[in-house]
Amino acid sequence: MRPPRRYRTQRTDWKDSRTVVYRGFLDGDSDHLTFVTDARSSKIEDLAHEPRVEICWYFPQTRDQYRIAGSMEVVGAKGEAARQAQRNAAWQRMSDNARQQFLWPHPGLPRPDDPESDALFEVPAPTAEEPVGDNFCLLVLEPSEVDHLSLKQNKRWRYRKAEGGGEGGAGWTEEYLNP
Amino acid sequence: MRPPRRYRTQRTDWKDSRTVVYRGFLDGDSDHLTFVTDARSSKIEDLAHEPRVEICWYFPQTRDQYRIAGSMEVVGAKGEAARQAQRNAAWQRMSDNARQQFLWPHPGLPRPDDPESDALFEVPAPTAEEPVGDNFCLLVLEPSEVDHLSLKQNKRWRYRKAEGGGEGGAGWTEEYLNP
Repeated sequence: MRPPRRYRTQRTDWKDSRTVVYRGFLDGDSDHLTFVTDARSSKIEDLAHEPRVEICWYFPQTRDQYRIAGSMEVVGAKGEAARQAQRNAAWQRMSDNARQQFLWPHPGLPRPDDPESDALFEVPAPTAEEPVGDNFCLLVLEPSEVDHLSLKQNKRWRYRKAEGGGEGGAGWTEEYLNP
Repeated sequence: MRPPRRYRTQRTDWKDSRTVVYRGFLDGDSDHLTFVTDARSSKIEDLAHEPRVEICWYFPQTRDQYRIAGSMEVVGAKGEAARQAQRNAAWQRMSDNARQQFLWPHPGLPRPDDPESDALFEVPAPTAEEPVGDNFCLLVLEPSEVDHLSLKQNKRWRYRKAEGGGEGGAGWTEEYLNP
C-alpha cells in the first residue's frame, strides 16, 4: 500500500542524498555495486523518477575520495530469474538484524510514541533462506563514470565507460586531471 | 576564465554528489552550516542550476545519520559586507595547506603528467589575512528539513522549518517516524 501523499517529503526533483551500506559487487566479481532497500522506502520512488545516481565514497585512512556515477536498477520480488537469484543471495548474506527490518512497519510513516507501537519492531528473525514478502529489494549500480581524488597524493583521475564498454577496464577511458 | 564545455562532466541535471569538509556554523552559533569551495569548481555551476541540496552526515561511533536539506548560498569575492566578513573569517580559520589550493591550476582540467606541471602545485602559502584572488568561495547552507535516524536506538525524527521559522528551534516542527 502506498502511503498518503501528505507523508512524503515531496522532494523527488531535489538532489536527495542518503547513507547506504555497500553490499559487495554483483556476483562477487563484476563492476556492478550492490545495495539493498525496502520497497516501501522513498528511495524507490526517487529512483523511478531518476535512476541516474552518484555515490560518494571517502576512505579516511588513505584519504581517497571516489565519486561513482551510473544508473541504479531496482530488483524487487518479480522479474527475471538471474536477478532473482542475485536478490536471494543478497538476502542470505545479511545479518538477522538487517533481515528483521523488512518486517517492520512502513519506513518514514508517523510512529506513535507508545509501547504498543514499539512492540511492532520486536519481530522474530525471518528465515535466511529467501526474502520474506515483497519488501526486500536489491539495488544494482552500473557505473559509467568514476572520479578518483587522492588527497594524500594531490592527484585526480576521471574514468569514463565508452559506448559498449565492457567489464574489467575494457572500454574505459582514463583522464589525469588537476585536483 | 571558464573552461571549454568539452571538459565539463555535463551532468548538471543529475544528482551530483561530493564529499565536503564541514567548516563550522556561520558566526559560530547560527543554524547555517558552512563549507568552502573554489570559484572554478563545478560545484558553482551545479549550485547555480539548483541551489537546493541535501547533506548526508553519518557519525559511525554513535551510529546517527543526519540528512540536512536546504538551500546553499555561494559567497564569492563580491557582495554585501556582512558576508564578506564571514568569507574572510572562513579563510583565516583554514590551514596553510588548504589555502594553497586556491592558487593551484584550474580544478578538473586535464593535467599534463610531467614535472613542469607538478611544479604548479608547489606554491608558497598565501597570506592568512584575507583571501588571495577571487577563487575562494564560502558556501552557506540554510537548512529547511532535517531527518535524524538513530541506528543504535532504531528511532527516527523529521524536523521541518515552518514558513518564517527562526533560529534555535523556534518555528520548527518535529515528527516521530518509523525508522
